[in-house]
Amino acid sequence: MALIVQKFGGTSVATIERIKAVADIVIAARKQGHQVVVVLSAMAGETDRLIGLAGQVAKHPDSRELDVLLSTGEQVTIALLSMVLRDRQYPAVSYTGGQVHILTDNVHNKARIVDIEAVRVKKDLSERKIVVIAGFQGIDENGNITTLGRGGTDTTAVAMAVALNADECRIYTDVDGVYTADPRLVPEARRMDRIAYEEMLELASLGAKVLQIRSVEFANKYKVPLRVLSSFEEGPGTLITDEDEEMERALIAGIAHNRDEAKLTLLGVPDEPGIAGAILSPIAEAGIEVDMIVQNMGVDNTTDFTFTVHRNDYGKALTLLEKTARGLGAKKVLGDNRIVKISVVGVGMRSHAGIASRMFAALAGEGINIQMISTSEIKISVVVDEKYLELGIRTLHSAFGLEGDGDVTGNAAG
Amino acid sequence: MALIVQKFGGTSVATIERIKAVADIVIAARKQGHQVVVVLSAMAGETDRLIGLAGQVAKHPDSRELDVLLSTGEQVTIALLSMVLRDRQYPAVSYTGGQVHILTDNVHNKARIVDIEAVRVKKDLSERKIVVIAGFQGIDENGNITTLGRGGTDTTAVAMAVALNADECRIYTDVDGVYTADPRLVPEARRMDRIAYEEMLELASLGAKVLQIRSVEFANKYKVPLRVLSSFEEGPGTLITDEDEEMERALIAGIAHNRDEAKLTLLGVPDEPGIAGAILSPIAEAGIEVDMIVQNMGVDNTTDFTFTVHRNDYGKALTLLEKTARGLGAKKVLGDNRIVKISVVGVGMRSHAGIASRMFAALAGEGINIQMISTSEIKISVVVDEKYLELGIRTLHSAFGLEGDGDVTGNAAG
Repeated sequence: MALIVQKFGGTSVATIERIKAVADIVIAARKQGHQVVVVLSAMAGETDRLIGLAGQVAKHPDSRELDVLLSTGEQVTIALLSMVLRDRQYPAVSYTGGQVHILTDNVHNKARIVDIEAVRVKKDLSERKIVVIAGFQGIDENGNITTLGRGGTDTTAVAMAVALNADECRIYTDVDGVYTADPRLVPEARRMDRIAYEEMLELASLGAKVLQIRSVEFANKYKVPLRVLSSFEEGPGTLITDEDEEMERALIAGIAHNRDEAKLTLLGVPDEPGIAGAILSPIAEAGIEVDMIVQNMGVDNTTDFTFTVHRNDYGKALTLLEKTARGLGAKKVLGDNRIVKISVVGVGMRSHAGIASRMFAALAGEGINIQMISTSEIKISVVVDEKYLELGIRTLHSAFGLEGDGDVTGNAAG
Repeated sequence: MALIVQKFGGTSVATIERIKAVADIVIAARKQGHQVVVVLSAMAGETDRLIGLAGQVAKHPDSRELDVLLSTGEQVTIALLSMVLRDRQYPAVSYTGGQVHILTDNVHNKARIVDIEAVRVKKDLSERKIVVIAGFQGIDENGNITTLGRGGTDTTAVAMAVALNADECRIYTDVDGVYTADPRLVPEARRMDRIAYEEMLELASLGAKVLQIRSVEFANKYKVPLRVLSSFEEGPGTLITDEDEEMERALIAGIAHNRDEAKLTLLGVPDEPGIAGAILSPIAEAGIEVDMIVQNMGVDNTTDFTFTVHRNDYGKALTLLEKTARGLGAKKVLGDNRIVKISVVGVGMRSHAGIASRMFAALAGEGINIQMISTSEIKISVVVDEKYLELGIRTLHSAFGLEGDGDVTGNAAG
């Protein structure tokens, strides 16, 4: 018997029929003898409907009241699922975030969980009840309702798993696991059985949309095994856990990509201390997030400075940069919003040299020019022209043998 | 400056436009210098929509989970109204029943309020905040969400007024007050300025649908002045309060009617002790509520026994009664579901004799035959053929001078 936390997102509870299908999954786990805690999102579309109502009453709805409004979405689904389970003679009981004291800070609309008082849930579990909890929401220390922001239900599930010392936290989604690359782009992509937390974190931050970064960080910090699996079909999914010996054998786990970025370059900036700050401060002050940053020595004691931002911020960033360029006496400003970032990720990089050169050689072999490079301990990212997206990913997928059927353990990505 | 509790029902918050109109009413009271607490229902139709969802997931939805589900309805409206008020720069703050500790018993779907801890609301009011509270809901001592049943928002408003020692509890509805008779039947019917709690209680229990009986009982018990008024148009409404000297002058306050009843009669039952119980026990055991009961001496040491039930229960009650009749050896069972009950109500009856004979004479004057009579300290009810509904009410309205324009104080009904 294990203690399992199961999380179902909005598409998994989008209709009455889907909620009944979720009940099947819950009951199956129960029949296997597990103690089950279920964490639910609002029905798909419901949060948007509520935001729409708020938009009709006020141009800038009060953030505290928005949380009071939005938190009703999950409250509806927990009640409905519990009714289905009770109707099938399983002793289910539902709780809002406030009822199980999911204590957060008081930053409305994007609160962070501070503590969970799991006493009540533990008591229910000891009485063999199935506990159904509203995700995405909590209360601050004054009892005000808060929400964790989009995707917060994953975080609730992991936090609940931590608080209960659960054996596994299962995240049910509309995909059946984590793949070595996006299967829509790479038909040979494989679902992985296992992947390390760190790899999943890199993949998530690099564009794989299977899991929220915060929930993976949380799981990693407290070492809760996470499993991603489908609520639409049966299957083992992908287990996200600490890296183990088997994983070490794989050079890279998977390939991620991100086509939401744009690149900006400042050429011929005086090479002085403080220049990076002078360039990026106006960008940061405008609330624009910078991803990759590369600085290279130029000619005549000048330097070239390149960075990427979200494509939506491209125009705004370009305007700001042109102003900065004039102030710094830079030679030229360049911009390109037709780029993609492709990344290879794997804990194997730590112990194996030559990954980078293998990656660059494979891309060069297909005539793909690399515009930017950025590395970390377990990932290498390159920026290339967006027309090379599919070719680039497929080339790397093949170059690192990810399609192989032998080593199905220890490779990963989205 | 007064402390005012304002209650708005489902039709008053049915749309975004209506919610904005409610904000106008709240702000107007605030501008008059009052401290304002607002109690809201769910948007009209929302509770039915949620019950519909529950009906789709389970034939008999679990009562605890139904409360978790239904309580979201008011949570949506309190958030939306607070957003409108905040958008207009008024410091509003919303609370669910649980957040302001509206403590109830644990009878889900029809809980009763046990206690309200008004500390938080009082603090907010002292800081000049407008407090917006979800009606219809509370929590039991274990923190489970409960609902008070349909119409419970009136009860929440009155209970809140009691807890806060409010100066007045205003119930906003779709009518502009309490009338001497149903204006749809009696064009001469007048809105009353004042009416006594007891009169309102009788009128409500006799079929006037303006207010919930429980909320009037509550207001009477704690002597909170209640005012019924329209959320659609301005006006003073009707104040429900303790009877005063002026009221004494009026013989009767108003006329109520009920066309939802049916009459059953057992003729020629042996006149023995325990016979009433023998007749009514099977009815009560079937969950059928009995309203009027009349027993009369018959011939040959037998008695005739007549009672009324809700028209929906007529067929079922008739079947049960026929079975009882056979067991008791009664002569005959009669039934009639084409009847109406007309009642005159007024605290003036206490000090004035002759009301009954004046009532009967007026009806006789129009050739209306009285089938049953039932009296209490401040009301007389008669059952007549349903074809006499309008004629009976108008005749009595005129006979007691209710249309008169002189004495506008102290008359009432619906």
